[in-house]
Amino acid sequence: MSAQPVSADQHPPHGHPANTAPSTQKSDKPSTASHPPAGKPDPTETAPHPKLHGPDGKTGGRIEDAAQGGLPAASAASASELASLKMSLRNGLRQFPDFPSPGILFEDIMPIFASHTLHTSLIRALELQIADVFHTAIGEKSEIDVVVGLESRGFLFGPTLALRLGAGFVPVRKRGKLPGDCATETFKKEYGEDVFQVQSDAIQKGQKVIVVDDIIATGGSAAAAGNLVRKLGGNLVGYVFMMELDFLKGREKLDAPVHTLLSGQEEKLDLPLGRTKESAQEAAKPVTDAGGSLAGEKP
Amino acid sequence: MSAQPVSADQHPPHGHPANTAPSTQKSDKPSTASHPPAGKPDPTETAPHPKLHGPDGKTGGRIEDAAQGGLPAASAASASELASLKMSLRNGLRQFPDFPSPGILFEDIMPIFASHTLHTSLIRALELQIADVFHTAIGEKSEIDVVVGLESRGFLFGPTLALRLGAGFVPVRKRGKLPGDCATETFKKEYGEDVFQVQSDAIQKGQKVIVVDDIIATGGSAAAAGNLVRKLGGNLVGYVFMMELDFLKGREKLDAPVHTLLSGQEEKLDLPLGRTKESAQEAAKPVTDAGGSLAGEKP
Repeated sequence: MSAQPVSADQHPPHGHPANTAPSTQKSDKPSTASHPPAGKPDPTETAPHPKLHGPDGKTGGRIEDAAQGGLPAASAASASELASLKMSLRNGLRQFPDFPSPGILFEDIMPIFASHTLHTSLIRALELQIADVFHTAIGEKSEIDVVVGLESRGFLFGPTLALRLGAGFVPVRKRGKLPGDCATETFKKEYGEDVFQVQSDAIQKGQKVIVVDDIIATGGSAAAAGNLVRKLGGNLVGYVFMMELDFLKGREKLDAPVHTLLSGQEEKLDLPLGRTKESAQEAAKPVTDAGGSLAGEKP
Repeated sequence: MSAQPVSADQHPPHGHPANTAPSTQKSDKPSTASHPPAGKPDPTETAPHPKLHGPDGKTGGRIEDAAQGGLPAASAASASELASLKMSLRNGLRQFPDFPSPGILFEDIMPIFASHTLHTSLIRALELQIADVFHTAIGEKSEIDVVVGLESRGFLFGPTLALRLGAGFVPVRKRGKLPGDCATETFKKEYGEDVFQVQSDAIQKGQKVIVVDDIIATGGSAAAAGNLVRKLGGNLVGYVFMMELDFLKGREKLDAPVHTLLSGQEEKLDLPLGRTKESAQEAAKPVTDAGGSLAGEKP
C-alpha cells in the first residue's frame, strides 16, 4: 500500500536519520525536514516492550505450532535492543503531505533503505520481533520455513529477512507476472478487483509461513496473500508489517496473528485541519496514482 | 524485464535445484522439470573464470575510481568458489516456454529465492563477482556507496546486496510511486514510452553507484536508471545483472561496465522450430502481459 492518511499533528516530519541518530555511514545524507516539535514524543519512547501488537484472542492459538520446538523468546536484553532500534527506525521515516493525492500524508520508508545503518537496524529489529512474537529462535534456527513478500515493497526486506531466518522467500505478485501453475486469489479494491498469484510449488504442505509487507492499511491485499498460503497447504503462522494504520482495522480481515514493528496510527485520531475520522478513512481508500496503479493497496 | 526469448535447444529445462545439487534445506521442493539432456553442458562449466563479461574498451576507464583504495580483487580461491556457485545457480533457474506469450521462453529466477541455500549462494556470488570486476574489497569495505535496484525484481536482491557491500539501497520506480522531489527519465518501449524516477536526495554527488537488475535484454530500462544516477551527480561505476540476453546487445546502450553473473544467451543462436534470429529478436520486444504491464521491459 502506498498512501497512508495520518494526522500531520500526530506524525510531524522527522529529520533525516543522519541528523537525528548517531551514524558514520558514508552514504547518509543531509536533513530534508525539520525536527519534530517539542511535546510530541516519538511513539516508540512510550512503548519499551517490543510486543506493541500482541496476538488477539481469536488468533492466539495459531502460533502454537511455531512455538513447538522453538527456543525461548527474546530476552530482556534483546527487548531493550529492539526498543532502541525501533526508535531509530521511527526517526528514519519521512512524511509527505498530499501525496499521491490531496489530504493524504504519505509515510516514506525509503530513507531506511538508503542508510546502511538503518537498513541493518530494520532487519535486526524484524528478526528480534519475529523471535519474540512467534516464540522462535533468533537467526537461521527460527523454525520459519517460508517468508512470503507482497509485490513490490515487500520485496525490499522480505528476501533479506528470509535469509536471516533460514527460510525461503516466495513472492506474491499481480496476475500474469509469474510463470507456471499458480494459485490465484481475487480481492476487492475501491474500483473493481485485483488478483494476486503465487507459484503452486513454492510452498509445501505444512510449512510454517509468515507474510510480510511494508504497511497494512485496509488489509485486503494481505488477506489475499494469506489465503494463497493456505490454498497451497502452508501453515500461516502470522503477518509481519513495518507499520500499521490501526484505525483502518485492517487486522480484522486477517485470521492469523498480526505484528507490526513500528506504531503507525493510534486507534483514536487527533485530527487537525477540520478533518473527521470518517474523512480520513475515506482518504485511505485506494486511489489511482500517476503511475496508474491503485496506490491505496499494492502499487 | 520479464520475458526472454531463448532457444529451447540451448537452454533445456533444468531440474529443480533440490534434485541437482546437494542440499539439506527443509524448504527445498521436488523436481518440476526434466534433467538437461546429455551433451548440453552447463554454460558455467566452460567458464571457470568469474569474469564472464569483462569491461569493454570504451568503458574500461570508468572502473578506475572504484579500484582506487580498493583491496586486491578476488583471489584464485574465491574465483573457484564463484565458479562453483554459478553452476548451482544456473541449475536453479527454470524455463517456461510460451510465457507470457507464444514463442517466448521465460527464465524463472524464483526457485533461487525459494531455496535458502541457493539464495545464500546468489548473494555470495554477486559479492564475489563485484569484488572481482570492480576491483574492490569483499564485504562492507567494498567502496560501493549505493546500490540502485530497478522495480520490482531488482528489489529481490538489491537490498540484501547493499547490506553486504556496506552500501545504501536506492530504488528506481515507475513514475508516481515515489514522494518528494524526484529526477525523471523517459525511455522508449515498443508501444510509447515509460518513465522512471529516483528521489533527488537519494544519491549524493560523487558517490560510487552500481545499478542492479535481474536480467538485461534490450537495455532501455537499465540505461534510464543509469541516466538517473548521473543526473543526481552519482559516479556510475557499473551495472550488475543476474543474467543477460547477449544477442539483444542491450549492453551497447549502457556507457558503464556491464557485468552479468550467469551466461544467458550466446551471441549466435541455434534456433529450432524454424525460427530465425530476427523472429527471436522480434519476440524479445516488450509485450503486454496479463498483468497489464510491458513484460519485455520492467514488469
